Amino acid sequence: ASNKSLLILPGDGIGPEAMGEVRRIVGWMEDNRAVSFDIDEDLVGGSSIDKHGIPITDEVVDKAQNVDAVLLGAVGGPKWDNLDFSIKPERGLLRLRKDLELFANLRPAVCFDALVDASSLKPELVSGLDIMIVRELTGGVYFGEPRGIEDLGNGIRRGVNTQVYTTPEIHRVARVAFELAKKRNNRVCSSEKANVMESGVLWREEVTKIGESEFPEVELSHMYADAAAMELVRKPKQFDVIVTDNLFGDILSDCAAMLTGSLGMLPSASLGDVDETGRRKALYEPVHGSAPDIAGQNIANPIATILSYAMALRYSFDMGEEADLVEGAVQKVLESGIRTGDIMATGMTQVSTTEMGDAIIREL
Amino acid sequence: ASNKSLLILPGDGIGPEAMGEVRRIVGWMEDNRAVSFDIDEDLVGGSSIDKHGIPITDEVVDKAQNVDAVLLGAVGGPKWDNLDFSIKPERGLLRLRKDLELFANLRPAVCFDALVDASSLKPELVSGLDIMIVRELTGGVYFGEPRGIEDLGNGIRRGVNTQVYTTPEIHRVARVAFELAKKRNNRVCSSEKANVMESGVLWREEVTKIGESEFPEVELSHMYADAAAMELVRKPKQFDVIVTDNLFGDILSDCAAMLTGSLGMLPSASLGDVDETGRRKALYEPVHGSAPDIAGQNIANPIATILSYAMALRYSFDMGEEADLVEGAVQKVLESGIRTGDIMATGMTQVSTTEMGDAIIREL
Ligand SMILES: CC(C)[C@H](C(=O)O)[C@@H](O)C(=O)O
Ligand SMILES: CC(C)[C@H](C(=O)O)[C@@H](O)C(=O)O
Repeated sequence: ASNKSLLILPGDGIGPEAMGEVRRIVGWMEDNRAVSFDIDEDLVGGSSIDKHGIPITDEVVDKAQNVDAVLLGAVGGPKWDNLDFSIKPERGLLRLRKDLELFANLRPAVCFDALVDASSLKPELVSGLDIMIVRELTGGVYFGEPRGIEDLGNGIRRGVNTQVYTTPEIHRVARVAFELAKKRNNRVCSSEKANVMESGVLWREEVTKIGESEFPEVELSHMYADAAAMELVRKPKQFDVIVTDNLFGDILSDCAAMLTGSLGMLPSASLGDVDETGRRKALYEPVHGSAPDIAGQNIANPIATILSYAMALRYSFDMGEEADLVEGAVQKVLESGIRTGDIMATGMTQVSTTEMGDAIIREL
Repeated sequence: ASNKSLLILPGDGIGPEAMGEVRRIVGWMEDNRAVSFDIDEDLVGGSSIDKHGIPITDEVVDKAQNVDAVLLGAVGGPKWDNLDFSIKPERGLLRLRKDLELFANLRPAVCFDALVDASSLKPELVSGLDIMIVRELTGGVYFGEPRGIEDLGNGIRRGVNTQVYTTPEIHRVARVAFELAKKRNNRVCSSEKANVMESGVLWREEVTKIGESEFPEVELSHMYADAAAMELVRKPKQFDVIVTDNLFGDILSDCAAMLTGSLGMLPSASLGDVDETGRRKALYEPVHGSAPDIAGQNIANPIATILSYAMALRYSFDMGEEADLVEGAVQKVLESGIRTGDIMATGMTQVSTTEMGDAIIREL
């Protein structure tokens, strides 16, 4: 047995297909770099609902708790859309995030040189774009109590959710953002609605405190979430690291991802704290969703999932060299004009999911 | 005295300058179309804080309650940034919205033909763009209780806000959206995070009910707010009317406004219910903010405020012909190549705020 453990959760939609290509690259690593992983594979989301009636079992959560890294495909699809809120596919992912306390979600919004023209934005606005969005992932309105729908009588109902943050929750995610900025361009922009929400006032004050006391060398700015959405569209390259809460992060990171034109290419990492054994709990997954409309057709772009695996190599297994190899191979494949349908452009060669995997392995 | 009453609240930053140009157009209307308004002017936001210590007085709220329409410039600025949350400039605007029960905020995101190139997006994606965002404006996390920051001891604090919607609140804003869609392209897209928030589940169910029972001829779709942010960037012309809550509406409407490249051009209307006297409470304001960085320099673009006045003519005073006149004049001025700095482009003629006013009056 290896000392490197990885739990693979392909999930739903295009998740399994994309993960198939990751498996092949893992195989390549074993054959060519003598790296072996203890790999386990299990169910999450709709595929778990179909088998167990719930979107994730305790057993799978347990496994996730005890590996070095989890690699997830995607969850959800119309098949499970009408299920009750509490057992929808998404709850599997949300439970993983919460139970593993993966509080820092790193979402790079990078524009790949070869894909500049795939962006909706003018090339000069996105070429070279490289933003890191740090989204708080275990707090806020996603998990706040009280929550639910209550009956007020007379046919009237009331839906409630609670946005809540404590100072330690804000501090730990702020630190991740500042640390990352130090390795990048030394700038953090914190985003909330402090003009409307007291939880945003607290967020702003506490991020400021951490910045001033622990990272005086990092430039900190603040931007209301609505203004941030505007500025992302107007002039995305003004940003280096953006730190924000769970809900704003959900929206702003998707907006930023789409700006790049490289949505099918973007990985993400969700990180917890370092534990007693020196291990940092971690889950890696593509930014894109399960794309049920194109699932099972061998046309999905597996690159975001493959790059999520590369992120796992870098952050969880300290295998920067191997991560470079994978990222380099992807780069070369793009430069050679090979494209899946989502990033196809005139003059390029359109390939299937497995052919994209072939091409990347060829470059490795 | 006229039977048409208008309360003008210039507010802060570029608000007063922009409103100055509106005043000139109102003057033109009196001279040339024999329309007279009972106009009152008062303070809101920072300017009210400076004089009264609070961002709006009861007297001004009272006036707003008793006119046919309120025309607002913009509020806020760095001067008042460090004030306590409860007396910040924004609270003046929020109190007006709440006390007048202006629950439906209409935010058109329109791309002006002459300004296609001012957009960050590729021209083919935005040319002809015409979206109407209907944002709920008196509920949700903006006003929900409990809210505030509490001390948990040991230096730990907790910030809380509450997202809450009742079925009647959802119904009334949904109806406004469906009614608008009927006059447009018959399509409503409702946006929430029903995959994560119970308040979103309720929103989705209730919008669906109103659609099915009262507007079966209007096509209704649903989109998670993060996906909506993505789709706005990817392919904005897919949308006709978008209906969403206060917070998502804040972000999505700003994102959509910026897509058009015409931010300095976009008006908005906030409408209440029709009262016993047949009057619908209404407030009109530009989508853009107070732009303190360029205030007082006579360089701001007054068009969004002027078009807000045109919206008031159309919706509150049933003066569609006069509204057409104003909108047509703006169009012609743009076509003639006259531009304020924010929408300036090579080959055009850059003018000041007052010169833009001159040009519009010349075209009238
Ligand atoms: C699937 C859903 C619960 C999730 C979220 O809202 O966090 C997704 O949109 C994401 O951003 O990872
Ligand atoms: C000024 C602020 C309170 C306001 C809001 O958040 O609603 C503004 O952003 C808007 O969209 O009108």
